[in-house]
Amino acid sequence: MTSPDGGSGSGQRVALDAMGGDHAPATTVAGALLARDDGVDVVLVGDAERLRAEPGGTDLPVVHASEVVAMDEDPALALRSKRDASIRVAAALVADGSADALVSAGSTGATLAAGLLAIGRAPGVRRPAVAAVLPGTGTVLLDAGASPDVQPDALVAYARMGAAYATVRGVAAPRIGLLNVGAEPGKGNALARAAEELLAELEGFVGNVEPAAVLAGAADVVVTDGFTGNVLLKTLEAAAGAGGADGPGAAVLLGCARPVLVAHGDAGPEEIAAALRTAAEVAAGDLAGRVAERLSAASREPTRA
Amino acid sequence: MTSPDGGSGSGQRVALDAMGGDHAPATTVAGALLARDDGVDVVLVGDAERLRAEPGGTDLPVVHASEVVAMDEDPALALRSKRDASIRVAAALVADGSADALVSAGSTGATLAAGLLAIGRAPGVRRPAVAAVLPGTGTVLLDAGASPDVQPDALVAYARMGAAYATVRGVAAPRIGLLNVGAEPGKGNALARAAEELLAELEGFVGNVEPAAVLAGAADVVVTDGFTGNVLLKTLEAAAGAGGADGPGAAVLLGCARPVLVAHGDAGPEEIAAALRTAAEVAAGDLAGRVAERLSAASREPTRA
Repeated sequence: MTSPDGGSGSGQRVALDAMGGDHAPATTVAGALLARDDGVDVVLVGDAERLRAEPGGTDLPVVHASEVVAMDEDPALALRSKRDASIRVAAALVADGSADALVSAGSTGATLAAGLLAIGRAPGVRRPAVAAVLPGTGTVLLDAGASPDVQPDALVAYARMGAAYATVRGVAAPRIGLLNVGAEPGKGNALARAAEELLAELEGFVGNVEPAAVLAGAADVVVTDGFTGNVLLKTLEAAAGAGGADGPGAAVLLGCARPVLVAHGDAGPEEIAAALRTAAEVAAGDLAGRVAERLSAASREPTRA
Repeated sequence: MTSPDGGSGSGQRVALDAMGGDHAPATTVAGALLARDDGVDVVLVGDAERLRAEPGGTDLPVVHASEVVAMDEDPALALRSKRDASIRVAAALVADGSADALVSAGSTGATLAAGLLAIGRAPGVRRPAVAAVLPGTGTVLLDAGASPDVQPDALVAYARMGAAYATVRGVAAPRIGLLNVGAEPGKGNALARAAEELLAELEGFVGNVEPAAVLAGAADVVVTDGFTGNVLLKTLEAAAGAGGADGPGAAVLLGCARPVLVAHGDAGPEEIAAALRTAAEVAAGDLAGRVAERLSAASREPTRA
């Protein structure tokens, strides 16, 4: 096993679903080796024989898992029937403390489900959300796709969870914006109008932000429902030509008791390595603890009690 | 007065709210002159003295209007209090048959309201929608911002209205897609899931389309609610650097009894000219009649009766 000595994710072990992704395990093993060279302690989870056959595959610790959840399988059904699926085994390693964070480029639905089922939620979390970091500005956008239909108060919790993530990323006092179709108060659909009133009480809230303002970095955290957020993210990716390794490499499932990161299915080694570094960093930064702290602080505030 | 002789919008007169837009009337008069050179019959509506002071402003017909609705005014209030506002006078010209289509780069809300109040709806239209044409593919996206909250059956009417617009644009058998966060059936929020079931019965429906498929031209018409559509459109514009004159120059309010077009507030002369050409073309193509026809055909279908 490697023993990391340095890097901002120092001392954190990351479990990688090495069978997840369009080009796994070639890309996952190659990405893990890159991250290992940066001091990240990675454990590969998957078919041991196949992993060790990859270049450098014998240089990394491997936990065997005999099954794989395919991209087109129903996540819930697949997780139930495949008890030895790599994503399940990887999540179990995090759940039992053998690893500190989980990364997968496999089925997003299966990764979210395995994370929530095996690892569970951080205290105070009612509804986890996927947080993406936008290229260029580093803005945290959530929900980027976990829950397509939500009530207005969910967006307030997203704002708190997103702010916790932004502080882990080094933003001392995150500015929080509500994605909307106009900057003026009272704009938008019923969800946005109701959420705006609730968010007005929140420290750091800068009001409605239109897409142009989001891309210009007018807020550090931008909240919306998981349908609109996913459309915005995918539109940006399609307009720009997808992903890349200059960002965090993966979206983070906020609200899990330990970090769970979802990389693109077509992630290459550089993007996998970036995801592994981000996973180690947010684990070292106690992302889950900060999320719980911001949510529990909320429950003590008189206006929200 | 000019007398057009040629062009696909031949014989159609377009009323231009010459006071609407960030740089009006300089840009509107300059744009009207460009369109006139292309054979579009334009009538300027606004402060006659100011319009005639612009270069070439005496070469175009002018209908005087003494007031202007500002961009930041409440549309309904402004229209009620300013009876001689340029957008109201321009809409009245279309309503009484003095002109065949309306173009404004002023307040979108005021333009939509003036269009609907003065000109009214085409037969069978319950909810008008704003249709934008995406750059590159020419895909018709609606609703791009008229109604943020709608029921699933509204998206079926949007599909019919958008298909009517696509046929005016020369697409013989428009492919209709539902904007969604996944291509598989059953994806999305409650609105999308319910709309998908209703749309399945519609001729030309190709299923769910993700943003990447939309930008790749997988459908000729893409329907969604006015909140999501506006976010997608504004995200694209922000990612690409806004608007331009290679498209239709303006979004079209589908469902009005005569064409109403909304140009960008910061539209330059080329974009204003494109909007005027588009207005003449859709009027010549009987857009409103085709919308009414597709909606009335729907009411005769047994499955939708």
